[in-house]
Amino acid sequence: MDIEAINSLPYEDFVSIFGNVVERCPIIAAAVWSGRPFPSGAAIEAAINAFIEALPESGKEGILRCHPDLAGKDLQSGTLTPESREEQGAAGLDRMGAAEVSRMTRLNAEYKARFGFPFVVCARMNDRTSIVEQLRERLGNTQAQERARGVEEVKEICRLRLQSLVPSDQKHKL
Amino acid sequence: MDIEAINSLPYEDFVSIFGNVVERCPIIAAAVWSGRPFPSGAAIEAAINAFIEALPESGKEGILRCHPDLAGKDLQSGTLTPESREEQGAAGLDRMGAAEVSRMTRLNAEYKARFGFPFVVCARMNDRTSIVEQLRERLGNTQAQERARGVEEVKEICRLRLQSLVPSDQKHKL
Repeated sequence: MDIEAINSLPYEDFVSIFGNVVERCPIIAAAVWSGRPFPSGAAIEAAINAFIEALPESGKEGILRCHPDLAGKDLQSGTLTPESREEQGAAGLDRMGAAEVSRMTRLNAEYKARFGFPFVVCARMNDRTSIVEQLRERLGNTQAQERARGVEEVKEICRLRLQSLVPSDQKHKL
Repeated sequence: MDIEAINSLPYEDFVSIFGNVVERCPIIAAAVWSGRPFPSGAAIEAAINAFIEALPESGKEGILRCHPDLAGKDLQSGTLTPESREEQGAAGLDRMGAAEVSRMTRLNAEYKARFGFPFVVCARMNDRTSIVEQLRERLGNTQAQERARGVEEVKEICRLRLQSLVPSDQKHKL
């Protein structure tokens, strides 16, 4: 879909298409629609990032808390969003043995108990081995570091989801 | 559920229970969890209202755009959230004749084209006759007036949804 077509979408269609570029936060796409017309897909990305950055710290934590655990119960029960399912699958998280799943569950629980939000990482840029390594490593950070890091990962996930929705823009600007 | 039990909920359970007190905006419940413990259900309501008020105008419009049309296609196709279905049903919007539905669809379309977000009103505090009257009347307002009015209606919807989740608080504070 090219940018002219995107700019002519009513908000309902825009939210229907872009509503999950930030996981389970359709309010963000719904908010940035106010800023159309966008000169490019990169401008949509910039508007989303600016919206996220302007949120209070609680709002950034809120975004993280709308994310599912990696290799968690939503993956097991088939209740992931289509985007998350594809990304967790690409990282091999849907092909882990029982011992690996159990280790991941323990690390996720430790992370959530420590920080009050889930471990968020861009699964498309990682495989299951590097995800477990990063989870272990990031457990040693402070809450403020992890909030900031999680938000950066959210932006990276958003960038790649946008790329798959605005492919004509991909080579140039995103 | 009493307030002590609510304050002891992990964020996942809190978001699962309170995630739709603002329609399709789980990020809001997920954000206010950061402010626990809450002395009362009314304090949860106050935290939600403060979060909404602190959003930029685009964010408030974003909240409105996450709401379904009244007597719209989500009602017809059964894709409303459980809360919306109950509220639209309570106002009699699921028992309208074809001519009434058609009039409502026309007015909703006019409202959305004029303001760029849907007509939001607390259906539990109204019936279908007063909803149509208000829709006609509010079409004469400015966009800024309607954004502010829509947000007030969102808060009222939220207050009533919270009341049904924190009943012990109902008589005293909400």
